[in-house]
Amino acid sequence: AQSSLTLFGVMDAGISYYETKSNRYTNNPLMAAPLFAPDNVTRSKWAMSTGGNSGSRLGFRGTEDLGGGLAASFWLEAALANDTGLGTAPGGIIGFNRRSTLSLSGGFGEIRLGRDFTPIYTNDLIADPWVNSGVGATLFGSLGANLATLRGPGSPVAASDHYTRASNSIGYFLPPGLGGFYGQLMYGLPETVKLSNAPQAPSSTGRYFGGRFGYARGPVDVAIAYGSSQAADGLVAAALVNNKIDIASVIATYDFGPLKLYGELMQTQDKRESTSISAITRIKDKYKGGLIGVTVPVGPGQFRATYAKVKFDTGAEVAPLSVGSTDMDASSQKLALGYVYNLSKRTAFYATVAKVQIKDGQNNPVVMGSTTGGGLTYLSTGAGVQGYAPRSSMGYDFGFRHAF
Amino acid sequence: AQSSLTLFGVMDAGISYYETKSNRYTNNPLMAAPLFAPDNVTRSKWAMSTGGNSGSRLGFRGTEDLGGGLAASFWLEAALANDTGLGTAPGGIIGFNRRSTLSLSGGFGEIRLGRDFTPIYTNDLIADPWVNSGVGATLFGSLGANLATLRGPGSPVAASDHYTRASNSIGYFLPPGLGGFYGQLMYGLPETVKLSNAPQAPSSTGRYFGGRFGYARGPVDVAIAYGSSQAADGLVAAALVNNKIDIASVIATYDFGPLKLYGELMQTQDKRESTSISAITRIKDKYKGGLIGVTVPVGPGQFRATYAKVKFDTGAEVAPLSVGSTDMDASSQKLALGYVYNLSKRTAFYATVAKVQIKDGQNNPVVMGSTTGGGLTYLSTGAGVQGYAPRSSMGYDFGFRHAF
Amino acid sequence: AQSSLTLFGVMDAGISYYETKSNRYTNNPLMAAPLFAPDNVTRSKWAMSTGGNSGSRLGFRGTEDLGGGLAASFWLEAALANDTGLGTAPGGIIGFNRRSTLSLSGGFGEIRLGRDFTPIYTNDLIADPWVNSGVGATLFGSLGANLATLRGPGSPVAASDHYTRASNSIGYFLPPGLGGFYGQLMYGLPETVKLSNAPQAPSSTGRYFGGRFGYARGPVDVAIAYGSSQAADGLVAAALVNNKIDIASVIATYDFGPLKLYGELMQTQDKRESTSISAITRIKDKYKGGLIGVTVPVGPGQFRATYAKVKFDTGAEVAPLSVGSTDMDASSQKLALGYVYNLSKRTAFYATVAKVQIKDGQNNPVVMGSTTGGGLTYLSTGAGVQGYAPRSSMGYDFGFRHAF
Repeated sequence: AQSSLTLFGVMDAGISYYETKSNRYTNNPLMAAPLFAPDNVTRSKWAMSTGGNSGSRLGFRGTEDLGGGLAASFWLEAALANDTGLGTAPGGIIGFNRRSTLSLSGGFGEIRLGRDFTPIYTNDLIADPWVNSGVGATLFGSLGANLATLRGPGSPVAASDHYTRASNSIGYFLPPGLGGFYGQLMYGLPETVKLSNAPQAPSSTGRYFGGRFGYARGPVDVAIAYGSSQAADGLVAAALVNNKIDIASVIATYDFGPLKLYGELMQTQDKRESTSISAITRIKDKYKGGLIGVTVPVGPGQFRATYAKVKFDTGAEVAPLSVGSTDMDASSQKLALGYVYNLSKRTAFYATVAKVQIKDGQNNPVVMGSTTGGGLTYLSTGAGVQGYAPRSSMGYDFGFRHAF
Repeated sequence: AQSSLTLFGVMDAGISYYETKSNRYTNNPLMAAPLFAPDNVTRSKWAMSTGGNSGSRLGFRGTEDLGGGLAASFWLEAALANDTGLGTAPGGIIGFNRRSTLSLSGGFGEIRLGRDFTPIYTNDLIADPWVNSGVGATLFGSLGANLATLRGPGSPVAASDHYTRASNSIGYFLPPGLGGFYGQLMYGLPETVKLSNAPQAPSSTGRYFGGRFGYARGPVDVAIAYGSSQAADGLVAAALVNNKIDIASVIATYDFGPLKLYGELMQTQDKRESTSISAITRIKDKYKGGLIGVTVPVGPGQFRATYAKVKFDTGAEVAPLSVGSTDMDASSQKLALGYVYNLSKRTAFYATVAKVQIKDGQNNPVVMGSTTGGGLTYLSTGAGVQGYAPRSSMGYDFGFRHAF
Repeated sequence: AQSSLTLFGVMDAGISYYETKSNRYTNNPLMAAPLFAPDNVTRSKWAMSTGGNSGSRLGFRGTEDLGGGLAASFWLEAALANDTGLGTAPGGIIGFNRRSTLSLSGGFGEIRLGRDFTPIYTNDLIADPWVNSGVGATLFGSLGANLATLRGPGSPVAASDHYTRASNSIGYFLPPGLGGFYGQLMYGLPETVKLSNAPQAPSSTGRYFGGRFGYARGPVDVAIAYGSSQAADGLVAAALVNNKIDIASVIATYDFGPLKLYGELMQTQDKRESTSISAITRIKDKYKGGLIGVTVPVGPGQFRATYAKVKFDTGAEVAPLSVGSTDMDASSQKLALGYVYNLSKRTAFYATVAKVQIKDGQNNPVVMGSTTGGGLTYLSTGAGVQGYAPRSSMGYDFGFRHAF
């Protein structure tokens, strides 16, 4: 049978500046501010960045024509931190953590086994002119990764697993040629152990399912996606806990020729239940967001701009008389501007600037504290009462990308 | 000089079910059974499996013709856990842990330096229709790996080292064209340090030697192999210890055309000595086993079946009056059935079912407690007196394999 | 645009013997020697070695012609420990730790981003007939790596970073065609964080800069190089510390045809300052060295010999009346001889013998205690007063190298 074997990759390196600013806040006006505490604290650094335009990677892929329209194919794609030469899996390992799949495809579509993007992340990528890369990366990307890392289940491959990617997954893709309609389903096996002498087992922690369906014809591309991740499920410290992260989004892009518009609406629910002998707790946090973007071909390159906003609606009940906790919500917005100058189809210079602004960051500093990248974190203290809270972040990328 | 450079590999993914069952046992009829203790405990799980038919891997190999019949060649082959994209070396590293060798070959045969299969493991592979892959893998494979992991020396590359593979090894292979006779020798350097001020050094822990000799002509292939691994040697807790694992096996396969028969006889000795001021201990455990298998070409595929049995003869002395310890031996058997459906020479579907049955597992639960894979372990308690012991294991593989 | 993509590497394996000898010393003649203490202690081992002639590696590199004299290129090169199949990054990771760079080149020269050799190490490599490989490797190589490992800053990729290589670096190379003149500059970003509420930040620990300039025409090649690594900078245990390692060298090679001569002069300064409320300390250690080497084409191979000497001048002040500390300096010398027999351009046998001799090793055992490789260390006790000190080291390599 005919077959192909391809070595491919991206090398993307740049110089970047990152900055985070945390502001002093108080939710309790009766408490005195500490002496000598500055109004805000700024952290910043210059760094060699990778993947500012497109994630650095090295991959191997191949296809074998099995006849009768059938084909077997595989895809192994490793993320690279090319500023140091190591990988991005835990411990600096170079692993095929971007994608590791084996497929059988034919008239029925494609069955894909292994580690792959989730449907919901695919939606986020397509609606983001920055393809979730560099300082301009979609605000929904930071939010999804922050929440997955905080709640779990994560995986030995990445803490953000089940937002961006899922291992041990079975994917199904509709075949092409359905009059513009396309779609996919994904199921990630939890691989937990069932014990005959432990009735609450097996935990379904780590189970993932999601789907994506859309229509693309001519200049238009619209799609909806949904994903549900079982972040926790089982007995934790004498309580039966259950935590699900459900994300839904709708995206649309329209290519007018002189410019292309991008839009996305997203809602994430973080549903947590805990049942113990003494108490039952049910909390449903919501994150709602919108993104608009535009790309404009200018000369041999492309101008890009996006604006996104995310609003956090806490599901926690607020004691009506508690001081300083009248509003437990938070919001963040991000503006990103940039230009990509193409030296060839595969090689480009790029420059990007982005700013994140956060309101009431003290109410959810971990998830809402999005930065523009670079590993900088906010100063975040006071547990929502009085201290420092994430306030804003700036970032610049000046880089060079080469695909091979 | 002419040369070749090849990128090659296997991607193999499937859905598998694994189950282990541990039974309650007592070797002391005078002790009362605990209340509410179930008669047996079953553990099970569904998982995405890799390498159910052939170990997933990615490799690079090449040969340079040096003239005069001489050739230089190298082989780098990494094991992949393609369900997650990581590797199988400790910590999930992708390393060339399957094989990493540099060779010089010519009329004299081949000298091979680096990490490679041991001769004894090669024998086990060739006598196993499942090539030690998936739930049907040879019972001798689990036994060898379990014992090597328990006793050592292992290595930073794999705990089972010196059964399946050896690093730092020098191998010699007879040239082809000896009228059907073939053979190989392997020596693994212990790389231990000699100290002028410590007379017992250097320890030879980690030294390996082995060989394999056979005859293959027409439908027949017979071979014997032997390997000796120095698992421990030196001063441990004020005692001079010495532990050797010696394995010998004879295999034969005969291809009748409509079916091919496989057979193997194996004996493993686990010899442990400990000399301290107060006591000298010498224990020689023995494991004896036999395997028969058959493959039958059926349609575009192949039917496979194997049956194997291993008997453990303890070398520990039994106090004649001890209650409940009249028989310290154990045995295990394994039956495996399957079908491989070839879509092409390189691509296939497969389905396998296997069952392991263990008698008196409490007498050697670590080594004799073979499972059908998947990381499931038995519930094993009571230290041979009263508790749970490995009893049986089931496994199913439904998978898809593609070689490139 | 035209482009190339190349898979390349080296596999080098051999059998080596290593030995270190430590001698008993006393700097205090009033102290009695311990009873039964031998005059010297020898450690030795046999090992399978890798990279005795050329560092084992696997790499991917490519170039795209962008037109107008411009080209984009990348280089990913991983070091291999092919005796075990793992890599050489911490934890046995296979990473592109030898080189990981993205370049833009044209009439202006080359801009190179990522992880690369430092200019000073390049000088050391070119002046060393052994290319810093195997038992014969340049004495300046051990010295530089020992000092970088001891003082820092190191990196997650290698403890010797900022002597041999630097990550997060921006390199500039002069274009060819300057009448024989060539040159390069390198700057390594410290990537440290600036904090608005911590005036001493950002620390510049990890900053590197260096350069190399030379002239090569016909048989002659001369070059100077300089490098400065910020090993430490900041508040450590209530003291403001600053540690810089500055290295300068000049090299020359001359190819007479029947033989080629190599020479290098090197000076390293290890400058340490510590300012606390109670004390200010300033120490400037110096290491001065010279190397001469020769290669002689003999038959299908090459004979090689080098001799090098390094003198350590301590910058620590010696209390004038202290017993036994009248000379705090030390020195080491190394002699290496070998032959490389080429089977082809890419494949060779080699044999090397080397000896290191150390004087007053007790005064700086970590940095001056160079060995011939193999992971053997000296017995080193007594903190410079009375005990064992590094004295000499022997090494032999018998190996086989194949480049692909």
